[in-house]
Amino acid sequence: MTTASDRFWVDYRITVRDGRSIEDHARDICIEQTVEVPPEVIPDTHGELGLIGRVESCRPVVDRANVWQVRISYRLDVTGFSLPQLLNVLFGNISLKNNILVSGLQYPEGLLEHLPGPRFGISGLRRLLGVHGRALACTAIKPMGLPIGDFVRIATEFARGGADLIKDDHGLADQPFHPFEERVARCQEAIERVNAQTGRRCLYFPMVSGGYDRLEKQLAFAAREGVRGVMVGPMLIGLDSVRHIAREYGLAVMAHPALTGTCFHDRSHGITPAVLLGTLFRLAGADISIYPHAGGRFHLTAEECRELADALRRPEGRLQPAFPCPAGGMTLDRVPELIDFYGPDVILLIGGDILRQRDIAGAVGRFMDRLRQCGQEELSPPESGPAGACEWRSGAGPAGRVEEILRFAGYTWSDRRRQAYKAEDEADFKGVSRQELTGKFGERTAFDLRYFEIEPGGWSSREKHVHEHVIIGVRGRGLLCKQTKEIPIGINDVAYIAPLEVHQLRNPGDEPFGFYCIVDHKRDRPQPA
Amino acid sequence: MTTASDRFWVDYRITVRDGRSIEDHARDICIEQTVEVPPEVIPDTHGELGLIGRVESCRPVVDRANVWQVRISYRLDVTGFSLPQLLNVLFGNISLKNNILVSGLQYPEGLLEHLPGPRFGISGLRRLLGVHGRALACTAIKPMGLPIGDFVRIATEFARGGADLIKDDHGLADQPFHPFEERVARCQEAIERVNAQTGRRCLYFPMVSGGYDRLEKQLAFAAREGVRGVMVGPMLIGLDSVRHIAREYGLAVMAHPALTGTCFHDRSHGITPAVLLGTLFRLAGADISIYPHAGGRFHLTAEECRELADALRRPEGRLQPAFPCPAGGMTLDRVPELIDFYGPDVILLIGGDILRQRDIAGAVGRFMDRLRQCGQEELSPPESGPAGACEWRSGAGPAGRVEEILRFAGYTWSDRRRQAYKAEDEADFKGVSRQELTGKFGERTAFDLRYFEIEPGGWSSREKHVHEHVIIGVRGRGLLCKQTKEIPIGINDVAYIAPLEVHQLRNPGDEPFGFYCIVDHKRDRPQPA
Repeated sequence: MTTASDRFWVDYRITVRDGRSIEDHARDICIEQTVEVPPEVIPDTHGELGLIGRVESCRPVVDRANVWQVRISYRLDVTGFSLPQLLNVLFGNISLKNNILVSGLQYPEGLLEHLPGPRFGISGLRRLLGVHGRALACTAIKPMGLPIGDFVRIATEFARGGADLIKDDHGLADQPFHPFEERVARCQEAIERVNAQTGRRCLYFPMVSGGYDRLEKQLAFAAREGVRGVMVGPMLIGLDSVRHIAREYGLAVMAHPALTGTCFHDRSHGITPAVLLGTLFRLAGADISIYPHAGGRFHLTAEECRELADALRRPEGRLQPAFPCPAGGMTLDRVPELIDFYGPDVILLIGGDILRQRDIAGAVGRFMDRLRQCGQEELSPPESGPAGACEWRSGAGPAGRVEEILRFAGYTWSDRRRQAYKAEDEADFKGVSRQELTGKFGERTAFDLRYFEIEPGGWSSREKHVHEHVIIGVRGRGLLCKQTKEIPIGINDVAYIAPLEVHQLRNPGDEPFGFYCIVDHKRDRPQPA
Repeated sequence: MTTASDRFWVDYRITVRDGRSIEDHARDICIEQTVEVPPEVIPDTHGELGLIGRVESCRPVVDRANVWQVRISYRLDVTGFSLPQLLNVLFGNISLKNNILVSGLQYPEGLLEHLPGPRFGISGLRRLLGVHGRALACTAIKPMGLPIGDFVRIATEFARGGADLIKDDHGLADQPFHPFEERVARCQEAIERVNAQTGRRCLYFPMVSGGYDRLEKQLAFAAREGVRGVMVGPMLIGLDSVRHIAREYGLAVMAHPALTGTCFHDRSHGITPAVLLGTLFRLAGADISIYPHAGGRFHLTAEECRELADALRRPEGRLQPAFPCPAGGMTLDRVPELIDFYGPDVILLIGGDILRQRDIAGAVGRFMDRLRQCGQEELSPPESGPAGACEWRSGAGPAGRVEEILRFAGYTWSDRRRQAYKAEDEADFKGVSRQELTGKFGERTAFDLRYFEIEPGGWSSREKHVHEHVIIGVRGRGLLCKQTKEIPIGINDVAYIAPLEVHQLRNPGDEPFGFYCIVDHKRDRPQPA
């Protein structure tokens, strides 16, 4: 639990160039970033209540004339526990000043109740891939403007070469010449086809960039196609979208640094790469943070890269560590140097240097060989993961074939078998059976019809998912439990469950509760709620 | 209509500090911002197709050694006509470089089909207020941390003093000590109460800052409360949220510059205030753009302010001009100077200097007097505006709305109506009724659920179609007649009709025959057979 006395701490590096005292500068920030009124308008009680920023320490930076390191604390609840307002307090108005650099951010554990960070993190992504003990390889589908068939071919070659991750170039949006849905469906399908041959799992991260009202549609589409992670530009679509994607969709998130450079190209004003691409992106929920490594086409220094990787990976209580992903013109011959620099918990992104080679799969193969030479690869079966994959492609379908009539016979239908509701270890439920009636036997409907039955005293798993439910009562009576209400369901009552609405079916009665449940055929996997 | 040959133009001011030629720098940008691959990987056809940035002009800047003004054009459809991808092409990756300043942006009229800009603009806001011929006055509710009752009192005083606009301080988020909903409802109510007394309309712009999944809820709440406009920080929550709010909610948008300063504190790298807070915010749909005027607490120069105001107000085809809103420590005694600088089409924002006075309503009154002295005020009845603030609520289907539970009551469901099966002249049928249950009321399911009932002796049309049917018996008994066979259907029997299979439902019995019929939401029209 957080309380009104909880505070967070920001380190500002201030260069004084106007002859005023450092104390005056620090006090200006304390007021500007909170109450933003002339001192005489601040109520006396605001001081006691701790509502104004408070200078915790102030020391000169060694060997840098007129440069000071100032630590200011703010009440945590001033952020409303939300990222937009956290950014606002951190640097909103003072971004419009000069000579102020955010060089550190620390917060109490309680903030993680609201901003729980990466959903997968380094260990979760490794389990999803089943790859341990070595650095991971990522490649990029590009250039923008190719026919989709060429993207499919490139993705296939990347996967055949053994890449761990394949991402879209950040310039692949929803352009008319390669629309998002067709592009994502076909690339995902191509990569899954290779996965089925190799028995390994190469993950595809399509770029989702919205606009605002297209973003959810793109995410839902990607999830239904079986995508397990996406790439976003937090500064293009808003930092808090990262948290939303991680929490609501259960997808892994790769953060791209587009437009972030204005924050740190000037080393005396802005937000350091370590704080922005490291601490903040990790807190938002990025599992992977991409940035230009020193010595490529961009200007980050080796020291900045090291601090950034540290901000992503260092232990922070229950906050998952995230992968640094150095990029920006990296080449195959730099692999040993990069692994020497970062150690094994890193994702190396090499795009152009692979695409320039005639045999793409072969080039990826050499990339993988180098990673294996620099580590101790251990493989495990790829984990199905907590959520995110599509349900309609998972596993073998139930036995049976399309039937033109399924005879009702005491709440079973012809030869449709009563199956387990879910695997015992997969979810919390009791006394539920499932019968797949139509949709999985060769029909081409956009929906599946199932019959579920819950024994007296039983319940289904409490869950949510992007796909909707339509439920029709068939036998007995039961309860549809949503976040804040319980809806009784009787025979022939028709209930609707909206996207991402938490729900559970319960049978508090003393006879079986049976219901049809109609769902989209292509759908995302339920997430436990 | 836009075509693949439409292009937009970006002016980059480039400072060369590495001894390479300006041509090399310009070509780097053309590639970096589009295909982002080594030159040898770019397909030959990309040049002809115009998919790569194209240098349109390049000239040295007078009296600035090694500084060049370079105009680069890009194909418009590379943006996918969306703001996140427009930002990406404009400055995404090269933000991570140095010495590149975006100083201009021009686009063809066709872009306005997708990004239509301000919903109200200067003239629309003036009609909404009924105030013409003078500058407008805006004040700010603060400081953050006061009890809501104090905010209500301040808002009341502002409105009584005659302010045109009242905005929240940008630090008023959804904090536990003054939650969004209570704060907005009570301030709006207080201002409306004063409006009812004065017969004028003072508009309240609450700050909405989300997070991502709270934003729509906050907007819907504000609109329901009668709010006509909101303030957002586009860099806090994503630039495209401005367009979404303007288009979907019909609300006026006031853009706050929080966190934008990193883009233009360095005059040799970033995006100028005129392009970011002017051209881009206006294109996104901001009716009002707030920024710190020269000579306050921040560092914009008078020239930068003038260029910014010009970018907001200059004629641009059918794009509405937007209000500049200079702020940042302005005082009442600067009003004449500000109006002299900007002319009458400006909103002056004065917060702290009014709050510091004992009689707040009186201070606002003096603010208004000065504005009237500097202009020719003309009043008109405030207009209800082009879009009702609550228009979004009328979006549900004509026949009803999505319901989480449809109660079964004698073969009708809640308020779902029994409709004609088909038009009489459309097909051959007898005694059939239809009830649409789910799928047409705002759900996003891939299927529709309907209930049909056939009177004794009746039949449905004999037809075929590509889409499949799943039918479940609900009431009585009937026959499913296919090309060569008749299949009896009883209660809870589940029947399947394959693509293009001829079929008809008949009721040869003496009681009604009712059944659910599930079909794909997107489906072809039946053909008579």
